[in-house]
Amino acid sequence: MGGRHFFLRGPGREDPARHFIVRDDRVMNLSDKDWDELAQDSGAAESGAELRALMDGVIAAPNARTGDVWTQLCDPVPDAAVLGRLNNALAQHRAAVDPGFTQGPAPVSRLAALREELKRRGLAGFIIPRNDEYMGEYVPARADRLPWLTGFDGSAGTVVVGLEKAAIFVDGRYTIQVRDQVDTEAFEPRHLIEEPAAGWIAETFEAGAKIGFDPWLHTQAGAARLKQAAKRAGAELVRVEGNPIDAVWSQQPAAPISPAVPHDLAFAGESSADKRRKLADSLAEDGADAVVLTATDSIAWLLNIRGSDVPNCPLSLSFAILNADGSADWFVDGRKVTTSTRNSLGNAVAVHPIESFSDALTKLGAAGKTVSADPASAPCHVFDTLKASGATMRQAEDPCALPKAIKNSVELAGTRSAHRRDAAALIRFFKWIEETAPGGGVTELQAIAKLRTLRGPGEHYRDDSFDTIAGSGPNGAIVHYRASETTDRELQQGELLLVDSGGQYLDGTTDVTRTVAIGEPSAEMRERYTLVLKGHVAVARARFPKGVTGSQIDPMARAPLWARGLDFDHGTGHGVGSYLNVHEGPQRIAKSHSAVALEPGMILSNEPGYYKTGAYGIRIENLVVVSEVQTPPAGAERELLEFETITLAPYDRNLIGTAMLDADEMSWINAYHARVLAEISPFLDPETRDWLVKKTATL
Amino acid sequence: MGGRHFFLRGPGREDPARHFIVRDDRVMNLSDKDWDELAQDSGAAESGAELRALMDGVIAAPNARTGDVWTQLCDPVPDAAVLGRLNNALAQHRAAVDPGFTQGPAPVSRLAALREELKRRGLAGFIIPRNDEYMGEYVPARADRLPWLTGFDGSAGTVVVGLEKAAIFVDGRYTIQVRDQVDTEAFEPRHLIEEPAAGWIAETFEAGAKIGFDPWLHTQAGAARLKQAAKRAGAELVRVEGNPIDAVWSQQPAAPISPAVPHDLAFAGESSADKRRKLADSLAEDGADAVVLTATDSIAWLLNIRGSDVPNCPLSLSFAILNADGSADWFVDGRKVTTSTRNSLGNAVAVHPIESFSDALTKLGAAGKTVSADPASAPCHVFDTLKASGATMRQAEDPCALPKAIKNSVELAGTRSAHRRDAAALIRFFKWIEETAPGGGVTELQAIAKLRTLRGPGEHYRDDSFDTIAGSGPNGAIVHYRASETTDRELQQGELLLVDSGGQYLDGTTDVTRTVAIGEPSAEMRERYTLVLKGHVAVARARFPKGVTGSQIDPMARAPLWARGLDFDHGTGHGVGSYLNVHEGPQRIAKSHSAVALEPGMILSNEPGYYKTGAYGIRIENLVVVSEVQTPPAGAERELLEFETITLAPYDRNLIGTAMLDADEMSWINAYHARVLAEISPFLDPETRDWLVKKTATL
Repeated sequence: MGGRHFFLRGPGREDPARHFIVRDDRVMNLSDKDWDELAQDSGAAESGAELRALMDGVIAAPNARTGDVWTQLCDPVPDAAVLGRLNNALAQHRAAVDPGFTQGPAPVSRLAALREELKRRGLAGFIIPRNDEYMGEYVPARADRLPWLTGFDGSAGTVVVGLEKAAIFVDGRYTIQVRDQVDTEAFEPRHLIEEPAAGWIAETFEAGAKIGFDPWLHTQAGAARLKQAAKRAGAELVRVEGNPIDAVWSQQPAAPISPAVPHDLAFAGESSADKRRKLADSLAEDGADAVVLTATDSIAWLLNIRGSDVPNCPLSLSFAILNADGSADWFVDGRKVTTSTRNSLGNAVAVHPIESFSDALTKLGAAGKTVSADPASAPCHVFDTLKASGATMRQAEDPCALPKAIKNSVELAGTRSAHRRDAAALIRFFKWIEETAPGGGVTELQAIAKLRTLRGPGEHYRDDSFDTIAGSGPNGAIVHYRASETTDRELQQGELLLVDSGGQYLDGTTDVTRTVAIGEPSAEMRERYTLVLKGHVAVARARFPKGVTGSQIDPMARAPLWARGLDFDHGTGHGVGSYLNVHEGPQRIAKSHSAVALEPGMILSNEPGYYKTGAYGIRIENLVVVSEVQTPPAGAERELLEFETITLAPYDRNLIGTAMLDADEMSWINAYHARVLAEISPFLDPETRDWLVKKTATL
Repeated sequence: MGGRHFFLRGPGREDPARHFIVRDDRVMNLSDKDWDELAQDSGAAESGAELRALMDGVIAAPNARTGDVWTQLCDPVPDAAVLGRLNNALAQHRAAVDPGFTQGPAPVSRLAALREELKRRGLAGFIIPRNDEYMGEYVPARADRLPWLTGFDGSAGTVVVGLEKAAIFVDGRYTIQVRDQVDTEAFEPRHLIEEPAAGWIAETFEAGAKIGFDPWLHTQAGAARLKQAAKRAGAELVRVEGNPIDAVWSQQPAAPISPAVPHDLAFAGESSADKRRKLADSLAEDGADAVVLTATDSIAWLLNIRGSDVPNCPLSLSFAILNADGSADWFVDGRKVTTSTRNSLGNAVAVHPIESFSDALTKLGAAGKTVSADPASAPCHVFDTLKASGATMRQAEDPCALPKAIKNSVELAGTRSAHRRDAAALIRFFKWIEETAPGGGVTELQAIAKLRTLRGPGEHYRDDSFDTIAGSGPNGAIVHYRASETTDRELQQGELLLVDSGGQYLDGTTDVTRTVAIGEPSAEMRERYTLVLKGHVAVARARFPKGVTGSQIDPMARAPLWARGLDFDHGTGHGVGSYLNVHEGPQRIAKSHSAVALEPGMILSNEPGYYKTGAYGIRIENLVVVSEVQTPPAGAERELLEFETITLAPYDRNLIGTAMLDADEMSWINAYHARVLAEISPFLDPETRDWLVKKTATL
């Protein structure tokens, strides 16, 4: 569930300390000399100042996946005593850092300081998007410029600041939240779609005004739209050198530092050298000398590297250039890259400081190279720099996107295995819910915590693949719902609970939603659940020729709801990575047009839903793998594909209106439940197995 | 069926004499004086020369719909003696005309003459598309430049002529035909998609070469692609003034002249003044002063005018400008416009000579007007002329397209009525087939002729809406098949016959396909027919919320075939006009992306198929009207739409594998058959009614 394609959620403001574990309670007061000594003893830095800078980055990264971060950032691994000192020092250092994020409106002094900075630079305005330069789903605290300036922490939005007026543009999900979190005297709230920023810009600025934008934070197309809007006002859109917010944000967090570790061939299934060779060959065929990669999951896939710079997605924030000879240049904070990682990369991958990325682009241009980049994901800075230095530009889709989406047999075997372990945790969780919740006292947040405890010990588990959604009763109807202290509620008899969760395992990424009734559901709940289930089963059972796109599968998930005058306002399926992003392209199953044909090996979610505002939400989600039909029907003329369902957890039989199902649907569900029992039983204790036997009995 | 959206057929070469009826056998040899006298007596022209020019146009138009053309082109209507003299003179004049169309390769002398003309103009090449300046489905003989030059009469293709080499580009349907019809020494055949003209242009021409194109015959986008191709060769694409083929085609037919007659309000349902007012209001709202209309069906709809300048579509070839005050300027050969038509148009529609169209565009520009035109259908000449003269251009979809597609209640009542009369003819036809064909001796062409005789006497019938497709046995599997003397074959026992046909009635346009078995079909035929029928019924029964597009309906028609590894390579449905084009947009049901939501009042075809090469073809086609669901299901939350099926002819029960149908499908078919019987019986003789009772009995 979720993700950009679905407009359900996106980057949330990450509390940099959220996952941080302090190993020692003693907090010392270190002198400069102590810091220097600790640096020397740790082998992690040359000086105390360097060690503190390293810690700034460590603090800025979640480290749930990395265990003791020092064992991977120090070379050689320090002894236990030094590790203790490092953790103490980290705790002390962290306590001194206050990036200045607020609950509620940010101090208006920040806006005033920004305006002074703009005046100093001769700018009449500045545009602040929500994303960072990697354009990914999660934004590190350092790039949380919009939340720092305004207090708004929604996943999408744009702020335009003028010298007198400012406005914040948010979509329909956030029109209420923005008024709670933002000083609306300072920032006029506007609807992103109905009153887009372009119109406000055209109205607000005067002829001749210079409006700044940070070319690292906008795509070419985005910048072109802003340029057009500025032009309508007779104003001019100008690039800034250095983001003006960074200039006035005194305790801006550092860029996150987490170990960049090799992703084992036993999980990746193909060496980086082989991947690079294939891509390089088609680059050369297309007459290009190099391709610039700015999507961090593409880089992770290509180099077989994983990091933990942001929560939930095992990414190392960095840039890369793949050359037509198969060599690569990786632009990354060198402190993340341990000796073993460097060794695993081999000689054909050169590691460069991330600050040298722009210079490298300029060099490509100066050498007259033909360079490709993806206009959908690369910052316009990349195109501008290459063009300005004389490169011949090619605009093409990120060449990693499609091969990354088409999993190899090792990745598929891995994800099947990960899904079995994940299902075992999920089954234990729903047994616990069934036994505990009807008695009262279980809240959404408690359920989330319980699920995390059950998933945590799983083999190869590293993190959740996104923040679990647990929506009970009316909260289930809020599609982008995240439980918080304020919204948390007790699960109640006669209500539905929607739980959407997933895990990051070294061998695969999971994403699963089940909706269960607490006690006895109403007839309407059962009817609606069964309609959603019919759509879900229609997708699961679909057979279709090669060439079919997700747009053509999407109506199958909706037809049963449509016939009753119902629908759901999100996509039916998104791509899923292999120990990578839980939302990836280029394939999807959605109403919106997709030109990407489904190909064997692609992983997608199958997750229709139904949401009754103020009452309940229903969503049923399995991951599926696009597969060739092994035994095509007699007379088949086209190559046939189908979906292999890899998520294995029972549907709530208490919610299934069997009278509404036809024989084919019934037999599919019965066969699926039999498979769940057969495949997951080995992972269960006898009591849970007995429970599962009942839950998966023939309908 | 058919049409551009489907890539099944398109403009065929129209034999200008095909529908022409000579009323008198005596062919006189008229002197110039006789001609002058006849002109005077007829009231149709001032002089014999003018009368002959008028006859050139009459000869160039099909006149199946118009009966005696002179009663509408002469004012006042001449007496019977003069009518006889006119028809005699027409026959004499016609005999003297030879436009030079060939069966098989055209004389290469034409290519030589064209090259001389190009040299004279300083051109190194010239590009000849298949279409005319109206970009419609049917091209009048005058614009059949490509067939005249090459001999190729397929519906799509492009010729590029250089001074040394020439090539003809055709799509997959015509790769064999082109070698039969064209001198391949003179014109190298190329595959339009796999070896597009752009590549050949880039390879063939030298730097500095000037390649001509006729700006009336290309859209802006098309011209831009050619420009790009020329640029790759270092050559230049240049506009020609006057088509060079016209300069060397000695007996080029005239532009067709047929009466432009008012389309009665009793059929149109809305006056032209009201239509113009609504469009003008939104023009004014958008800040535009005028919109240029070049799509002839849009003009016919807007002015409530019909003509017969081309076969099958009741169009008057012309251009128009709609002004923001609701007035219109119509650019049309004045000889087509009778006094009664002028009266029906009223004062707000000014009739201008078609030759003055370009000047009118220039005047709009010179007056600094803001003018809109449709880049998808308007020749680039329109944009170039407006821009060059200083107009502010707006590119926008033809504003008639959507309101024309959404039929009003009068049009819907009319088409329902037309469909009942059409069904009566069709039922008589299939009774005849069943009784006659199994005995042998009935050929495809005979079947086509029989159907025309049965449809002909229908009230308000004016013409067929396209050339009937009757494909028996293996011919049925050729999707764009048209029977000819060479391909004609006898219907045989155990074979399928696919008949796709339609009528133009004053109150509606029909398009229907039925596939029937001659004698006993094979089990496979029955299985495949039933799969197609299941998809057809799925569309017919579909309910879906407002906002759904045809792309989202399309998979419903294919799912039963897909599940067996089968599919069909054309769209599922096209829009249909109201006594207008049998293929119209903007809506469609197809795999390809459509952004146009289905709206109540739109007429579409529902025509899945299956084609087994070398064996048989199956297609089942009804027209449907998008309608609001009158009694939505309890709890419906979205506005629901469905399809009302308006074609009423039985399916061949001999081909229905009832065991493959579920209860809902069976009951839909039974209810449909009951409706056919109830609604069409009143139009049938007792014997045919008895036959229909058997054919529509409960399955």
